[in-house]
Amino acid sequence: MKKYTEMTAAELISERAALDMAYKKECEKHLSLDMSRGKPSTAQLDLSNELLKILDGEDARAENGFDVRNYGILQGLPEARRLISELCCVDDDNVIIGGTASLEVMYNTLSRAMTFGVDGKSEPWSRQGKIKFLCPAPGYDRHFGMTADLGIEMINIKMTNEGPDMDEVERLVSSDASIKGMWCVPKYSNPDGITYSDETVRRIASLTPAARDFRVFWDNAYIVHDIYDAPDALLNIFDLTRGTKNEDMVYMFVSTAKITFPGGGISAFVSSKNNVAHALSHMKYQTISYDKINQLRHVRFFGGADGVRAHMKKHAAILRPKFDIVLSTLSKELGGLDISRWREPKGGYFVSLYVMNGTAKRVFELCKNAGVTLTTVGATYPYGVDPDDSNIRIAPSYPTEAELYDAMRVLCVCVKLAAAEKLLGTKG
Amino acid sequence: MKKYTEMTAAELISERAALDMAYKKECEKHLSLDMSRGKPSTAQLDLSNELLKILDGEDARAENGFDVRNYGILQGLPEARRLISELCCVDDDNVIIGGTASLEVMYNTLSRAMTFGVDGKSEPWSRQGKIKFLCPAPGYDRHFGMTADLGIEMINIKMTNEGPDMDEVERLVSSDASIKGMWCVPKYSNPDGITYSDETVRRIASLTPAARDFRVFWDNAYIVHDIYDAPDALLNIFDLTRGTKNEDMVYMFVSTAKITFPGGGISAFVSSKNNVAHALSHMKYQTISYDKINQLRHVRFFGGADGVRAHMKKHAAILRPKFDIVLSTLSKELGGLDISRWREPKGGYFVSLYVMNGTAKRVFELCKNAGVTLTTVGATYPYGVDPDDSNIRIAPSYPTEAELYDAMRVLCVCVKLAAAEKLLGTKG
Repeated sequence: MKKYTEMTAAELISERAALDMAYKKECEKHLSLDMSRGKPSTAQLDLSNELLKILDGEDARAENGFDVRNYGILQGLPEARRLISELCCVDDDNVIIGGTASLEVMYNTLSRAMTFGVDGKSEPWSRQGKIKFLCPAPGYDRHFGMTADLGIEMINIKMTNEGPDMDEVERLVSSDASIKGMWCVPKYSNPDGITYSDETVRRIASLTPAARDFRVFWDNAYIVHDIYDAPDALLNIFDLTRGTKNEDMVYMFVSTAKITFPGGGISAFVSSKNNVAHALSHMKYQTISYDKINQLRHVRFFGGADGVRAHMKKHAAILRPKFDIVLSTLSKELGGLDISRWREPKGGYFVSLYVMNGTAKRVFELCKNAGVTLTTVGATYPYGVDPDDSNIRIAPSYPTEAELYDAMRVLCVCVKLAAAEKLLGTKG
Repeated sequence: MKKYTEMTAAELISERAALDMAYKKECEKHLSLDMSRGKPSTAQLDLSNELLKILDGEDARAENGFDVRNYGILQGLPEARRLISELCCVDDDNVIIGGTASLEVMYNTLSRAMTFGVDGKSEPWSRQGKIKFLCPAPGYDRHFGMTADLGIEMINIKMTNEGPDMDEVERLVSSDASIKGMWCVPKYSNPDGITYSDETVRRIASLTPAARDFRVFWDNAYIVHDIYDAPDALLNIFDLTRGTKNEDMVYMFVSTAKITFPGGGISAFVSSKNNVAHALSHMKYQTISYDKINQLRHVRFFGGADGVRAHMKKHAAILRPKFDIVLSTLSKELGGLDISRWREPKGGYFVSLYVMNGTAKRVFELCKNAGVTLTTVGATYPYGVDPDDSNIRIAPSYPTEAELYDAMRVLCVCVKLAAAEKLLGTKG
């Protein structure tokens, strides 16, 4: 197939007519498909059903003899902290177990910094006038949502294939003391599926922030979420900051949302001992403890970090064919047309498709009218604005394989149709 | 027995010598007993063991067909909201289901008011200079802890047998716009076990606050926690505020902490539709939803509000003998001595003992040295200071009956010994 960008006007008009026909046919099927959110499928949820019945009243005791059904143990069960610390390659003392989702841990951490500051010495962020966060984009919409809600200004940072544009990050962080934080999804980034290179992690670990109370919000959401063989490897940033002036610079967040049950898993705050102590010094007024029963369920279910990794292979076996469908359809339908680009992630939950600049919203509308729901265009950018109107986040996990074939076929027709319209508008 | 206050110095010296002997005997037993926290006993926890196994993957669907193992439904499962709304005699729309403990819901509500204000119109509390809360005292130490942590000044309000001293509350609330809130445990108050009278609830519902953004934090922790027949009845404050200028004045908090499992139950925020909408408008950035699996477990376990009430009768059967031991020992050992007073609560978790002014800390120390741990004296007051050094909170739920006999006997010896010392010090 010829590149759209090299077609004559007549060829484009003919192509567009064919696409119009194809699109009408899709509309007549009255599909109702959703590729908008990174929700695990029912088959994935079923992998953890045993967790629901693994505990009863007779064996609801932690290894230290503590009855998990009663009050206490703010920092989380020792064995739950050990499970997380093994997964994250840190010490148990670096871990606080949170509630049933890591989003809340992130929000509470951000809110705590606003209200109290980060270390008991520096001023609360909310008392320091306008403050700013660096937001590698596209990124996770909920990071940007909470940052905006708390009144923090967001600065877009371009993503490269190695992670955030570090020249820009270093320039800004070292020169502007009102920049207090930076969001990162360092492994299989949402939505691009990019894993930060060793060089990127090293440069982040050795930042020289103008703000003494600068913090990296390291959302390691996909820490064990490999889908293909030869998965990406992420450097352990704590190995790089430990013992340096940046020892307290990184807050890491993890959860089992996409390992066991979203909103019913366990989550954790992982950081330096100073940061753990500071967090606990305020958390102790917020709760007596999070759900230790669910913590013990997870420990019993997995045994240890190896159990988690074995479990993730079952998820991968379910997700791999779905990612294959998305990637092979993109390649077959859009390859060589010079109207889009995408990466082939080795894990995570998304495929990030960049359509011709200025057509993403149009693609969304066309898909919507044909019964296919995509993530709202712009949602993956601060303030909901994709400056290029180009990025479309594809979430393949929830639909069935048959639905995915349908949805991807519709999407590709819409991407081509929007591009043809755009090129004709430009040329004509 | 003669009143200590009417004894001669010689009689007191003789009494004190006898008490010294008795106390030494207790110390020689090397007891290790804890009456410090309102923790349910193992037998109480066992009442809810069925909850742990009530759900499996096959039936993990809400009545609307929603798979509770997946993302979604911020406000909580409809049937969980209905369970709480039935218990609280409000509409489903007035309920948000929170995490596994109500303390966190209270903290988040207070923190939200600090950060965002209460209604999207008034200024955040944190931007209004010094603000204050009324704190009926003695009260719940964790209320005071979070209030202090968030930098809010606390004003002690005396408790009467009908609830907080309403003359004082009305005077302060109507004249000082920096007073933004008031803590209340309206039924079986912690620690006094006082249920607010109808008159008190009516006066609270019709307050005329100088601050437009004044809120009552109505911690209905013991809403169904009756222990004796003919339990106390609390007016439904929402029946009194609905449709009035105070419709948005009350935040209510409830949980199943002391119904099923502390830290593993379900909790709720109950308030006007305006307040629910405002809370959700920020909560949506904090979490996608709380644990719906645990919500469904609770609905399946209880069926409805009647199921909860039937369950509470089983708790009462376990707690009643323990309260009987406390009350009968107090009556037998301290009755008529004119050195202490206490109430006989019909429910809740505590017996509140007022020892001779200026001796509570001494009683605590004496008990500690004899192996009996009491709630830290002063903890039930703002800033940890009991102005009379008189209140001792007794928590009878966790020890066994045998342990309670021992602990109460030690406590009464210590109360008498401290009183004799004090009176001799005064007289001598």
